Amino acid sequence: MQKSEQLYEGKAKKVFKTDDPEVYIVDYKDDATAFDGLKKGTIVGKGVVNNRMSNLLFQMLEKKGIPTHFVKELSERETAVKKVSIVPLEVIVRNIAAGSFSKRFGVEEGTVLKCPTLEFCLKDDDLHDPMINEYHILALGLASKEDLETITDMTFRVNDALKEFFLSIGIELVDFKLEFGRTTDGKIILADEISPDTCRLWDSKTHEKLDKDRFRRDLGGVEDAYHEVMRRIGLEK
Amino acid sequence: MQKSEQLYEGKAKKVFKTDDPEVYIVDYKDDATAFDGLKKGTIVGKGVVNNRMSNLLFQMLEKKGIPTHFVKELSERETAVKKVSIVPLEVIVRNIAAGSFSKRFGVEEGTVLKCPTLEFCLKDDDLHDPMINEYHILALGLASKEDLETITDMTFRVNDALKEFFLSIGIELVDFKLEFGRTTDGKIILADEISPDTCRLWDSKTHEKLDKDRFRRDLGGVEDAYHEVMRRIGLEK
Repeated sequence: MQKSEQLYEGKAKKVFKTDDPEVYIVDYKDDATAFDGLKKGTIVGKGVVNNRMSNLLFQMLEKKGIPTHFVKELSERETAVKKVSIVPLEVIVRNIAAGSFSKRFGVEEGTVLKCPTLEFCLKDDDLHDPMINEYHILALGLASKEDLETITDMTFRVNDALKEFFLSIGIELVDFKLEFGRTTDGKIILADEISPDTCRLWDSKTHEKLDKDRFRRDLGGVEDAYHEVMRRIGLEK
Repeated sequence: MQKSEQLYEGKAKKVFKTDDPEVYIVDYKDDATAFDGLKKGTIVGKGVVNNRMSNLLFQMLEKKGIPTHFVKELSERETAVKKVSIVPLEVIVRNIAAGSFSKRFGVEEGTVLKCPTLEFCLKDDDLHDPMINEYHILALGLASKEDLETITDMTFRVNDALKEFFLSIGIELVDFKLEFGRTTDGKIILADEISPDTCRLWDSKTHEKLDKDRFRRDLGGVEDAYHEVMRRIGLEK
Protein backbone atom coordinates (compact mmCIF):
# COMPACT_ATOMS: atom_id res chain seq x y z
CA MET A 1 0.00 0.00 0.00
CA GLN A 2 1.38 3.37 -1.09
CA LYS A 3 0.80 6.91 0.15
CA SER A 4 -0.53 9.26 -2.51
CA GLU A 5 -1.86 12.82 -2.03
CA GLN A 6 -1.52 14.31 1.48
CA LEU A 7 -5.01 15.20 2.71
CA TYR A 8 -4.24 16.83 6.01
CA GLU A 9 -1.45 17.71 8.38
CA GLY A 10 -2.51 18.17 12.00
CA LYS A 11 -0.59 18.83 15.18
CA ALA A 12 0.49 15.22 15.65
CA LYS A 13 -0.34 13.35 12.44
CA LYS A 14 -0.43 13.53 8.66
CA VAL A 15 -3.10 11.75 6.66
CA PHE A 16 -2.61 10.51 3.07
CA LYS A 17 -4.83 9.05 0.39
CA THR A 18 -3.93 5.60 -1.03
CA ASP A 19 -4.85 3.76 -4.22
CA ASP A 20 -7.82 2.29 -2.31
CA PRO A 21 -10.51 5.04 -2.08
CA GLU A 22 -11.76 3.60 1.22
CA VAL A 23 -8.34 3.51 2.90
CA TYR A 24 -6.13 6.31 4.21
CA ILE A 25 -2.63 6.16 5.69
CA VAL A 26 -1.92 7.96 8.98
CA ASP A 27 1.68 9.00 9.66
CA TYR A 28 2.42 9.90 13.30
CA LYS A 29 4.81 12.82 14.05
CA ASP A 30 6.90 13.64 17.12
CA ASP A 31 5.53 17.20 17.29
CA ALA A 32 3.74 18.04 20.54
CA THR A 33 1.45 20.97 21.32
CA ALA A 34 -0.44 21.94 24.44
CA PHE A 35 -2.67 24.69 25.81
CA ASP A 36 -4.62 25.25 22.60
CA GLY A 37 -1.39 25.33 20.54
CA LEU A 38 0.35 27.97 22.69
CA LYS A 39 3.06 25.53 23.81
CA LYS A 40 5.00 23.69 21.12
CA GLY A 41 7.76 21.11 21.27
CA THR A 42 9.02 17.72 20.23
CA ILE A 43 8.80 14.45 22.10
CA VAL A 44 11.39 12.21 20.44
CA GLY A 45 9.89 8.85 19.46
CA LYS A 46 6.33 9.89 20.38
CA GLY A 47 5.01 9.13 16.88
CA VAL A 48 6.20 5.54 17.16
CA VAL A 49 4.70 5.08 20.64
CA ASN A 50 1.36 6.61 19.71
CA ASN A 51 1.06 4.66 16.46
CA ARG A 52 1.93 1.26 17.88
CA MET A 53 0.00 1.74 21.14
CA SER A 54 -3.14 2.98 19.32
CA ASN A 55 -3.01 0.00 17.00
CA LEU A 56 -2.68 -2.47 19.84
CA LEU A 57 -5.59 -0.84 21.73
CA PHE A 58 -7.80 -0.58 18.63
CA GLN A 59 -7.26 -4.31 17.93
CA MET A 60 -8.09 -5.12 21.56
CA LEU A 61 -11.28 -3.00 21.32
CA GLU A 62 -12.29 -4.62 18.00
CA LYS A 63 -12.15 -7.99 19.78
CA LYS A 64 -14.60 -6.58 22.35
CA GLY A 65 -17.02 -5.54 19.60
CA ILE A 66 -16.06 -1.86 19.21
CA PRO A 67 -15.69 -1.01 15.50
CA THR A 68 -12.56 1.10 14.83
CA HIS A 69 -10.83 2.64 11.82
CA PHE A 70 -7.79 0.30 12.17
CA VAL A 71 -6.85 -1.69 9.05
CA LYS A 72 -3.13 -2.59 9.20
CA GLU A 73 0.10 -1.36 10.75
CA LEU A 74 2.45 -0.51 7.86
CA SER A 75 5.53 0.69 9.73
CA GLU A 76 6.42 1.94 13.18
CA ARG A 77 4.86 5.35 12.36
CA GLU A 78 2.38 4.50 9.60
CA THR A 79 -0.97 2.75 9.71
CA ALA A 80 -3.67 2.06 7.12
CA VAL A 81 -7.07 3.14 8.41
CA LYS A 82 -10.61 3.20 7.04
CA LYS A 83 -11.58 6.44 5.34
CA VAL A 84 -14.03 8.31 7.55
CA SER A 85 -15.38 11.82 7.87
CA ILE A 86 -14.60 12.82 11.42
CA VAL A 87 -17.59 13.74 13.61
CA PRO A 88 -16.60 17.27 14.75
CA LEU A 89 -16.72 16.40 18.45
CA GLU A 90 -14.07 15.50 21.00
CA VAL A 91 -15.51 12.96 23.42
CA ILE A 92 -13.86 13.15 26.83
CA VAL A 93 -14.28 10.57 29.59
CA ARG A 94 -13.12 11.18 33.15
CA ASN A 95 -12.74 8.65 35.95
CA ILE A 96 -10.63 10.83 38.24
CA ALA A 97 -10.62 14.66 38.43
CA ALA A 98 -7.59 16.26 36.75
CA GLY A 99 -6.50 19.08 34.46
CA SER A 100 -9.14 21.47 33.10
CA PHE A 101 -11.93 19.63 34.94
CA SER A 102 -10.26 20.22 38.31
CA LYS A 103 -9.64 23.88 37.52
CA ARG A 104 -13.09 24.53 36.01
CA PHE A 105 -15.09 23.03 38.89
CA GLY A 106 -12.68 23.59 41.78
CA VAL A 107 -12.17 19.85 42.44
CA GLU A 108 -8.79 18.68 43.71
CA GLU A 109 -6.76 16.72 41.14
CA GLY A 110 -6.89 13.03 42.01
CA THR A 111 -10.44 13.07 43.39
CA VAL A 112 -12.12 9.84 42.31
CA LEU A 113 -15.45 10.76 40.66
CA LYS A 114 -18.67 9.13 41.94
CA CYS A 115 -19.26 7.89 38.37
CA PRO A 116 -17.40 8.27 35.05
CA THR A 117 -18.32 11.44 33.16
CA LEU A 118 -18.62 12.06 29.44
CA GLU A 119 -18.35 15.50 27.89
CA PHE A 120 -18.38 16.73 24.32
CA CYS A 121 -16.24 19.54 22.94
CA LEU A 122 -16.84 21.07 19.54
CA LYS A 123 -13.76 20.45 17.38
CA ASP A 124 -13.10 23.99 16.16
CA ASP A 125 -9.64 25.54 16.55
CA ASP A 126 -10.90 29.10 15.97
CA LEU A 127 -13.45 28.68 18.78
CA HIS A 128 -10.86 26.87 20.98
CA ASP A 129 -12.85 23.59 21.13
CA PRO A 130 -15.58 24.77 23.52
CA MET A 131 -17.52 22.32 25.67
CA ILE A 132 -20.92 21.61 24.12
CA ASN A 133 -23.85 19.49 25.27
CA GLU A 134 -26.25 17.07 23.56
CA TYR A 135 -29.01 19.69 23.23
CA HIS A 136 -26.61 22.13 21.54
CA ILE A 137 -25.36 19.41 19.18
CA LEU A 138 -28.92 18.59 18.10
CA ALA A 139 -29.96 22.26 17.88
CA LEU A 140 -27.00 23.02 15.60
CA GLY A 141 -27.46 19.82 13.55
CA LEU A 142 -23.90 18.59 14.30
CA ALA A 143 -25.04 14.99 14.86
CA SER A 144 -28.31 13.09 15.17
CA LYS A 145 -29.81 11.75 18.38
CA GLU A 146 -29.06 8.21 17.16
CA ASP A 147 -25.41 9.10 16.44
CA LEU A 148 -25.03 10.60 19.92
CA GLU A 149 -26.51 7.50 21.51
CA THR A 150 -24.15 5.28 19.50
CA ILE A 151 -21.15 7.41 20.42
CA THR A 152 -22.12 7.57 24.11
CA ASP A 153 -22.68 3.82 24.34
CA MET A 154 -19.39 3.01 22.56
CA THR A 155 -17.47 5.54 24.65
CA PHE A 156 -18.51 4.04 27.99
CA ARG A 157 -17.71 0.54 26.66
CA VAL A 158 -14.26 1.78 25.59
CA ASN A 159 -13.79 3.21 29.09
CA ASP A 160 -14.64 -0.12 30.73
CA ALA A 161 -12.26 -2.02 28.43
CA LEU A 162 -9.39 0.47 28.74
CA LYS A 163 -9.72 0.84 32.52
CA GLU A 164 -9.48 -2.93 32.93
CA PHE A 165 -6.56 -3.21 30.50
CA PHE A 166 -4.52 -0.41 32.08
CA LEU A 167 -5.25 -1.61 35.60
CA SER A 168 -3.75 -5.01 34.65
CA ILE A 169 -0.45 -3.25 33.88
CA GLY A 170 -0.45 -1.06 36.98
CA ILE A 171 -1.86 2.09 35.39
CA GLU A 172 -4.88 4.19 36.41
CA LEU A 173 -6.88 5.53 33.47
CA VAL A 174 -7.63 9.06 34.76
CA ASP A 175 -9.29 10.50 31.64
CA PHE A 176 -9.06 10.32 27.86
CA LYS A 177 -10.33 11.80 24.62
CA LEU A 178 -11.88 9.89 21.74
CA GLU A 179 -12.90 10.91 18.24
CA PHE A 180 -15.36 9.11 16.03
CA GLY A 181 -15.74 8.99 12.25
CA ARG A 182 -18.46 8.10 9.82
CA THR A 183 -17.61 5.59 7.07
CA THR A 184 -18.80 6.00 3.48
CA ASP A 185 -21.74 3.69 4.27
CA GLY A 186 -22.75 5.83 7.26
CA LYS A 187 -21.48 3.69 10.13
CA ILE A 188 -19.99 5.40 13.21
CA ILE A 189 -16.62 3.91 14.18
CA LEU A 190 -13.84 4.82 16.60
CA ALA A 191 -11.09 6.84 14.89
CA ASP A 192 -8.08 9.05 15.79
CA GLU A 193 -5.71 7.56 18.40
CA ILE A 194 -5.50 6.30 21.99
CA SER A 195 -2.08 7.19 23.42
CA PRO A 196 -0.30 9.12 26.19
CA ASP A 197 -1.17 12.20 24.08
CA THR A 198 -4.91 11.59 24.48
CA CYS A 199 -5.09 9.81 27.86
CA ARG A 200 -4.05 10.72 31.39
CA LEU A 201 -2.26 7.63 32.72
CA TRP A 202 -1.01 7.47 36.30
CA ASP A 203 1.03 4.72 37.92
CA SER A 204 -1.49 2.89 40.13
CA LYS A 205 0.79 2.90 43.18
CA THR A 206 2.89 6.07 42.98
CA HIS A 207 0.38 8.14 40.92
CA GLU A 208 3.36 9.23 38.80
CA LYS A 209 2.16 10.79 35.55
CA LEU A 210 2.95 8.66 32.48
CA ASP A 211 1.41 10.93 29.84
CA LYS A 212 1.51 14.27 28.04
CA ASP A 213 1.04 16.19 31.30
CA ARG A 214 4.84 15.71 31.78
CA PHE A 215 5.24 17.89 28.65
CA ARG A 216 2.40 20.33 29.45
CA ARG A 217 3.67 20.95 32.98
CA ASP A 218 7.43 20.74 32.32
CA LEU A 219 7.81 17.78 34.68
CA GLY A 220 10.78 16.29 32.79
CA GLY A 221 11.15 12.65 31.80
CA VAL A 222 8.65 13.04 28.98
CA GLU A 223 10.17 10.45 26.63
CA ASP A 224 10.82 8.05 29.53
CA ALA A 225 7.14 8.17 30.48
CA TYR A 226 5.98 7.32 26.94
CA HIS A 227 8.47 4.43 26.78
CA GLU A 228 7.47 3.18 30.24
CA VAL A 229 3.86 2.85 29.02
CA MET A 230 5.14 0.97 25.93
CA ARG A 231 7.21 -1.32 28.12
CA ARG A 232 4.25 -2.18 30.37
CA ILE A 233 2.03 -2.79 27.33
CA GLY A 234 4.64 -5.26 26.13
CA LEU A 235 5.63 -3.39 22.97
CA GLU A 236 9.16 -2.55 24.20
CA LYS A 237 11.70 -4.28 26.40
CA MET B 1 -45.94 39.63 57.42
CA GLN B 2 -42.79 41.31 58.70
CA LYS B 3 -39.17 41.10 57.56
CA SER B 4 -36.81 39.98 60.29
CA GLU B 5 -33.11 39.02 59.91
CA GLN B 6 -31.55 39.64 56.46
CA LEU B 7 -30.26 36.30 55.16
CA TYR B 8 -28.61 37.33 51.95
CA GLU B 9 -27.92 40.29 49.70
CA GLY B 10 -27.25 39.38 46.08
CA LYS B 11 -26.67 41.46 42.98
CA ALA B 12 -30.37 42.16 42.40
CA LYS B 13 -32.25 41.05 45.53
CA LYS B 14 -32.20 40.86 49.29
CA VAL B 15 -33.75 37.95 51.15
CA PHE B 16 -35.15 38.20 54.69
CA LYS B 17 -36.46 35.77 57.25
CA THR B 18 -40.02 36.24 58.57
CA ASP B 19 -41.86 35.05 61.66
CA ASP B 20 -42.95 32.00 59.61
CA PRO B 21 -39.93 29.63 59.42
CA GLU B 22 -41.12 28.32 56.03
CA VAL B 23 -41.51 31.79 54.44
CA TYR B 24 -38.91 34.30 53.30
CA ILE B 25 -39.38 37.81 51.89
CA VAL B 26 -37.55 38.80 48.71
CA ASP B 27 -36.87 42.53 48.18
CA TYR B 28 -35.92 43.47 44.60
CA LYS B 29 -33.25 46.15 44.03
CA ASP B 30 -32.54 48.42 41.05
CA ASP B 31 -28.84 47.41 40.98
CA ALA B 32 -27.70 45.84 37.73
CA THR B 33 -24.54 43.91 36.99
CA ALA B 34 -23.26 42.20 33.85
CA PHE B 35 -20.25 40.31 32.54
CA ASP B 36 -19.63 38.35 35.69
CA GLY B 37 -19.96 41.50 37.84
CA LEU B 38 -17.42 43.58 35.87
CA LYS B 39 -20.09 46.05 34.72
CA LYS B 40 -22.20 47.71 37.41
CA GLY B 41 -25.06 50.18 37.22
CA THR B 42 -28.62 51.05 38.18
CA ILE B 43 -31.77 50.55 36.16
CA VAL B 44 -34.33 52.85 37.81
CA GLY B 45 -37.56 50.99 38.62
CA LYS B 46 -36.10 47.59 37.64
CA GLY B 47 -36.83 46.08 41.06
CA VAL B 48 -40.53 46.89 40.68
CA VAL B 49 -40.71 45.48 37.15
CA ASN B 50 -38.86 42.27 38.04
CA ASN B 51 -40.88 41.66 41.19
CA ARG B 52 -44.31 42.22 39.67
CA MET B 53 -43.51 40.47 36.40
CA SER B 54 -42.02 37.42 38.15
CA ASN B 55 -45.08 37.17 40.38
CA LEU B 56 -47.47 37.32 37.44
CA LEU B 57 -45.49 34.66 35.54
CA PHE B 58 -45.09 32.40 38.58
CA GLN B 59 -48.87 32.51 39.15
CA MET B 60 -49.47 31.72 35.48
CA LEU B 61 -47.05 28.77 35.70
CA GLU B 62 -48.67 27.49 38.92
CA LYS B 63 -51.99 27.33 37.02
CA LYS B 64 -50.22 25.12 34.46
CA GLY B 65 -49.03 22.74 37.17
CA ILE B 66 -45.48 24.07 37.71
CA PRO B 67 -44.79 24.41 41.46
CA THR B 68 -43.05 27.72 42.31
CA HIS B 69 -41.80 29.50 45.42
CA PHE B 70 -44.42 32.28 45.07
CA VAL B 71 -46.60 32.90 48.13
CA LYS B 72 -47.89 36.52 48.06
CA GLU B 73 -46.94 39.92 46.65
CA LEU B 74 -46.46 42.22 49.64
CA SER B 75 -45.54 45.48 47.88
CA GLU B 76 -44.25 46.61 44.54
CA ARG B 77 -40.74 45.39 45.44
CA GLU B 78 -41.43 42.75 48.09
CA THR B 79 -42.80 39.23 47.83
CA ALA B 80 -43.29 36.42 50.30
CA VAL B 81 -41.82 33.18 48.95
CA LYS B 82 -41.45 29.63 50.22
CA LYS B 83 -38.19 28.93 52.00
CA VAL B 84 -35.99 26.77 49.80
CA SER B 85 -32.35 25.80 49.57
CA ILE B 86 -31.30 26.78 46.07
CA VAL B 87 -30.00 23.97 43.85
CA PRO B 88 -26.54 25.35 42.87
CA LEU B 89 -27.29 25.26 39.14
CA GLU B 90 -28.37 27.89 36.64
CA VAL B 91 -30.67 26.28 34.08
CA ILE B 92 -30.53 28.06 30.74
CA VAL B 93 -32.98 27.47 27.88
CA ARG B 94 -32.35 28.81 24.37
CA ASN B 95 -34.81 29.00 21.48
CA ILE B 96 -32.79 31.42 19.34
CA ALA B 97 -28.99 31.82 19.29
CA ALA B 98 -27.77 34.95 21.12
CA GLY B 99 -25.17 36.25 23.56
CA SER B 100 -22.57 33.84 24.92
CA PHE B 101 -24.03 30.93 22.93
CA SER B 102 -23.50 32.76 19.63
CA LYS B 103 -19.97 33.72 20.58
CA ARG B 104 -19.01 30.31 21.99
CA PHE B 105 -20.20 28.28 19.00
CA GLY B 106 -19.80 30.84 16.20
CA VAL B 107 -23.54 30.98 15.42
CA GLU B 108 -25.01 34.26 14.23
CA GLU B 109 -27.25 35.96 16.79
CA GLY B 110 -30.88 35.50 15.76
CA THR B 111 -30.42 32.01 14.28
CA VAL B 112 -33.49 29.98 15.19
CA LEU B 113 -32.31 26.71 16.76
CA LYS B 114 -33.55 23.37 15.35
CA CYS B 115 -34.82 22.53 18.84
CA PRO B 116 -34.75 24.31 22.23
CA THR B 117 -31.57 23.68 24.19
CA LEU B 118 -31.03 23.30 27.93
CA GLU B 119 -27.70 23.87 29.61
CA PHE B 120 -26.60 23.85 33.23
CA CYS B 121 -24.07 26.22 34.77
CA LEU B 122 -22.59 25.65 38.22
CA LYS B 123 -23.60 28.58 40.45
CA ASP B 124 -20.18 29.56 41.79
CA ASP B 125 -19.00 33.18 41.59
CA ASP B 126 -15.36 32.25 42.26
CA LEU B 127 -15.40 29.78 39.35
CA HIS B 128 -17.38 32.23 37.14
CA ASP B 129 -20.42 29.94 36.83
CA PRO B 130 -18.90 27.41 34.40
CA MET B 131 -21.08 25.30 32.11
CA ILE B 132 -21.49 21.80 33.52
CA ASN B 133 -23.25 18.72 32.20
CA GLU B 134 -25.45 16.03 33.75
CA TYR B 135 -22.57 13.55 34.08
CA HIS B 136 -20.44 16.12 35.93
CA ILE B 137 -23.36 17.00 38.23
CA LEU B 138 -23.84 13.33 39.16
CA ALA B 139 -20.09 12.67 39.47
CA LEU B 140 -19.72 15.62 41.87
CA GLY B 141 -22.91 14.78 43.80
CA LEU B 142 -24.48 18.20 43.12
CA ALA B 143 -27.94 16.74 42.40
CA SER B 144 -29.46 13.29 41.95
CA LYS B 145 -30.55 11.77 38.64
CA GLU B 146 -34.18 12.11 39.74
CA ASP B 147 -33.70 15.81 40.61
CA LEU B 148 -32.14 16.46 37.20
CA GLU B 149 -35.03 14.72 35.45
CA THR B 150 -37.54 16.78 37.45
CA ILE B 151 -35.70 20.02 36.69
CA THR B 152 -35.32 19.18 32.99
CA ASP B 153 -38.98 18.25 32.60
CA MET B 154 -40.19 21.38 34.45
CA THR B 155 -37.81 23.62 32.50
CA PHE B 156 -39.09 22.53 29.08
CA ARG B 157 -42.69 22.92 30.32
CA VAL B 158 -41.84 26.45 31.53
CA ASN B 159 -40.34 27.18 28.10
CA ASP B 160 -43.52 26.05 26.32
CA ALA B 161 -45.72 28.13 28.62
CA LEU B 162 -43.55 31.26 28.49
CA LYS B 163 -43.02 31.10 24.71
CA GLU B 164 -46.77 30.95 24.16
CA PHE B 165 -47.43 33.75 26.67
CA PHE B 166 -44.80 36.12 25.25
CA LEU B 167 -45.82 35.39 21.66
CA SER B 168 -49.37 36.49 22.54
CA ILE B 169 -48.00 39.93 23.49
CA GLY B 170 -45.71 40.28 20.46
CA ILE B 171 -42.48 39.13 22.11
CA GLU B 172 -40.07 36.38 21.09
CA LEU B 173 -38.60 34.43 24.02
CA VAL B 174 -34.98 34.09 22.85
CA ASP B 175 -33.49 32.50 25.97
CA PHE B 176 -33.84 32.57 29.75
CA LYS B 177 -32.30 31.34 32.99
CA LEU B 178 -34.14 29.53 35.76
CA GLU B 179 -33.16 28.51 39.26
CA PHE B 180 -34.76 25.79 41.33
CA GLY B 181 -34.97 25.27 45.07
CA ARG B 182 -35.66 22.41 47.40
CA THR B 183 -38.33 22.89 50.08
CA THR B 184 -37.93 21.65 53.64
CA ASP B 185 -39.88 18.51 52.69
CA GLY B 186 -37.55 17.81 49.74
CA LYS B 187 -39.71 18.96 46.83
CA ILE B 188 -38.05 20.71 43.86
CA ILE B 189 -39.85 23.95 42.95
CA LEU B 190 -39.15 26.88 40.63
CA ALA B 191 -37.50 29.78 42.49
CA ASP B 192 -35.58 33.00 41.79
CA GLU B 193 -37.22 35.31 39.19
CA ILE B 194 -38.37 35.49 35.55
CA SER B 195 -37.79 39.02 34.27
CA PRO B 196 -35.97 41.08 31.63
CA ASP B 197 -32.87 40.48 33.81
CA THR B 198 -33.10 36.73 33.29
CA CYS B 199 -34.74 36.48 29.83
CA ARG B 200 -33.81 37.73 26.36
CA LEU B 201 -37.03 39.21 25.00
CA TRP B 202 -37.20 40.56 21.45
CA ASP B 203 -40.08 42.37 19.77
CA SER B 204 -41.57 39.74 17.42
CA LYS B 205 -41.70 42.12 14.45
CA THR B 206 -38.77 44.54 14.83
CA HIS B 207 -36.53 42.16 16.90
CA GLU B 208 -35.82 45.17 19.14
CA LYS B 209 -34.25 44.03 22.40
CA LEU B 210 -36.55 44.49 25.43
CA ASP B 211 -34.23 43.12 28.10
CA LYS B 212 -30.99 43.50 30.03
CA ASP B 213 -28.91 43.33 26.82
CA ARG B 214 -29.76 47.07 26.45
CA PHE B 215 -27.76 47.60 29.66
CA ARG B 216 -25.02 45.03 28.86
CA ARG B 217 -24.39 46.47 25.42
CA ASP B 218 -25.01 50.19 26.17
CA LEU B 219 -27.92 50.34 23.71
CA GLY B 220 -29.76 53.07 25.64
CA GLY B 221 -33.48 53.05 26.48
CA VAL B 222 -32.92 50.48 29.23
CA GLU B 223 -35.73 51.64 31.54
CA ASP B 224 -38.08 52.14 28.56
CA ALA B 225 -37.55 48.53 27.50
CA TYR B 226 -38.38 47.16 30.97
CA HIS B 227 -41.52 49.33 31.11
CA GLU B 228 -42.55 48.33 27.56
CA VAL B 229 -42.55 44.68 28.67
CA MET B 230 -44.63 45.64 31.73
CA ARG B 231 -47.07 47.52 29.51
CA ARG B 232 -47.52 44.57 27.16
CA ILE B 233 -48.01 42.21 30.10
CA GLY B 234 -50.80 44.52 31.27
CA LEU B 235 -49.13 45.59 34.53
CA GLU B 236 -48.63 49.22 33.43
CA LYS B 237 -50.55 51.66 31.24
